[in-house]
Amino acid sequence: MSSSEIDSAWRRLTKGYSHFLRQTPVVKLSGATLGVAGAQVWLKLEHLQVGGSFKARGMLNRLLANPIPDSGVIVASGGNAGIATAAAARALGVSCEVFVPAVCPEAKRARLRALGAQVVVAGAVYSEALEACLARQQATGALLTHAYDQPEVVAGAGTLAYEIEQQVGLPDAVLVSVGGGGLIAGIAAWFGQRARVVALEPELAPTLFQARAAGQPVDVAVSGIAADSLGARRIGAIAWEVTQRHVKDALLLPDEAIRAAQQWLWTELRLAVEPAAALGVAALQTGAYVPCEGEKVCLILCGANMDPASLD
Amino acid sequence: MSSSEIDSAWRRLTKGYSHFLRQTPVVKLSGATLGVAGAQVWLKLEHLQVGGSFKARGMLNRLLANPIPDSGVIVASGGNAGIATAAAARALGVSCEVFVPAVCPEAKRARLRALGAQVVVAGAVYSEALEACLARQQATGALLTHAYDQPEVVAGAGTLAYEIEQQVGLPDAVLVSVGGGGLIAGIAAWFGQRARVVALEPELAPTLFQARAAGQPVDVAVSGIAADSLGARRIGAIAWEVTQRHVKDALLLPDEAIRAAQQWLWTELRLAVEPAAALGVAALQTGAYVPCEGEKVCLILCGANMDPASLD
Repeated sequence: MSSSEIDSAWRRLTKGYSHFLRQTPVVKLSGATLGVAGAQVWLKLEHLQVGGSFKARGMLNRLLANPIPDSGVIVASGGNAGIATAAAARALGVSCEVFVPAVCPEAKRARLRALGAQVVVAGAVYSEALEACLARQQATGALLTHAYDQPEVVAGAGTLAYEIEQQVGLPDAVLVSVGGGGLIAGIAAWFGQRARVVALEPELAPTLFQARAAGQPVDVAVSGIAADSLGARRIGAIAWEVTQRHVKDALLLPDEAIRAAQQWLWTELRLAVEPAAALGVAALQTGAYVPCEGEKVCLILCGANMDPASLD
Repeated sequence: MSSSEIDSAWRRLTKGYSHFLRQTPVVKLSGATLGVAGAQVWLKLEHLQVGGSFKARGMLNRLLANPIPDSGVIVASGGNAGIATAAAARALGVSCEVFVPAVCPEAKRARLRALGAQVVVAGAVYSEALEACLARQQATGALLTHAYDQPEVVAGAGTLAYEIEQQVGLPDAVLVSVGGGGLIAGIAAWFGQRARVVALEPELAPTLFQARAAGQPVDVAVSGIAADSLGARRIGAIAWEVTQRHVKDALLLPDEAIRAAQQWLWTELRLAVEPAAALGVAALQTGAYVPCEGEKVCLILCGANMDPASLD
């Protein structure tokens, strides 16, 4: 993954589809607000993106960069990747099948159907839904989107970093939540060595952390408050390669700190985000990441798919 | 109220207190998102302001523009004005008394106390709390803030319009929710005849609408979904004067449309706002306001003080 692939994605996404994707805003806060006086904190409000997460960028890029067969687009996901794929397919006027396991709640299925997707319930758990999805893809030849480990998906995610630099300039550091690693791969590929990119993971979903310990991607048991969106079991191949080159820090955060940060974002800033989007705030509030004097730290609020009733 | 008073307020607020107030972002959407294809919709996310509403601007301006006695600051309000006054007083390190009626829920009192305010429960309803507040102010000489009808408060609100113009240029039209009218007075005073300023009110809280019908401010019965923040019983004197000069349109919206717009802002954009902040979206969605081809319409999302559990 290179910055020129991200540049291409940016041009592809903004050429004809700027009416679909949103340029999400950046809010600048004084560091004191987050207990890091002397630093400046930038919040990239990417949870306001179409579909409620950054994934719309990658999915639309994947669809625009490839010929789409009559059988349309296919994905296995009951979460942000499924929503983003369905929304991108609708924007392009192509059909979309989304495979979900039986555990996927009816509210999420209804949201996918409202986006025009055909929802197929297959298997009890995600791995079974994925298996059925891949078999179906073989039969129909539909274009498959992957939640994080396809070059177009990573390059699309990277446009988020490109956009930040256009909007407010180069940050000194960027704190990024990691599940399968599509987001951090795109961001680190864009900034390279020009900004310090820091990986954040829940203690209970440490795919990158464990891969670094093992020296290679390994399967990891995942659970906890953010497993819904950061619950990939293994870091993606692209993310592994990019983070090995560009990411020095991979930090773990406990669920209680993530929950407190999510609640703080609501109470103090009126930002309603999913737990995965609160890791940056948690890293500053717990002191897991301590910025230097004058440092410009950018946090990516990457998603907003949660039940608002869960906020106090 | 003149644009030069707003200019003074802007300089006062940004000189030393830019670490306290936030420059809230503007998101641009294609009109098609809101059913007004051909227009461009700007959302000013002022619900992300300190204290969750635009009122922090006016209250801080009031406090900075006047000497503050040892007895501090005093206000009667269990809502956004009370929160904003308490937050501004804390920022300046002065004491603050907030008078609330017994109907004010404990959650709101706790929030005021968390901001360092002394909460005084007086009377059964708001008018009784106000009476007690005014008596106390006479005794102590504390600086009184009014929710909407003081020049510094209106000029502070006007900085919101100044900021929009700095951020994204001059809109063609601005849709503004009206309660006591402090916000629309500031906005209309800033834009004057340079932009069309449209007043929006719930059918059940029509203070400006009824004043225009009567030819002068009159007391109005208020109720309904947005009464918590738009429930002033009479349009302010400053707002009356400014809107008579600059505002041609005063539109009424039914509660069902306001509720649907509030829910839409959450479901589609992940913006959690109070009903009062949803009137602009309701005006576009119902066709109460129809922008022209190419029109740049700015909606002010003015507050976020509500229970997130009320969103589906």
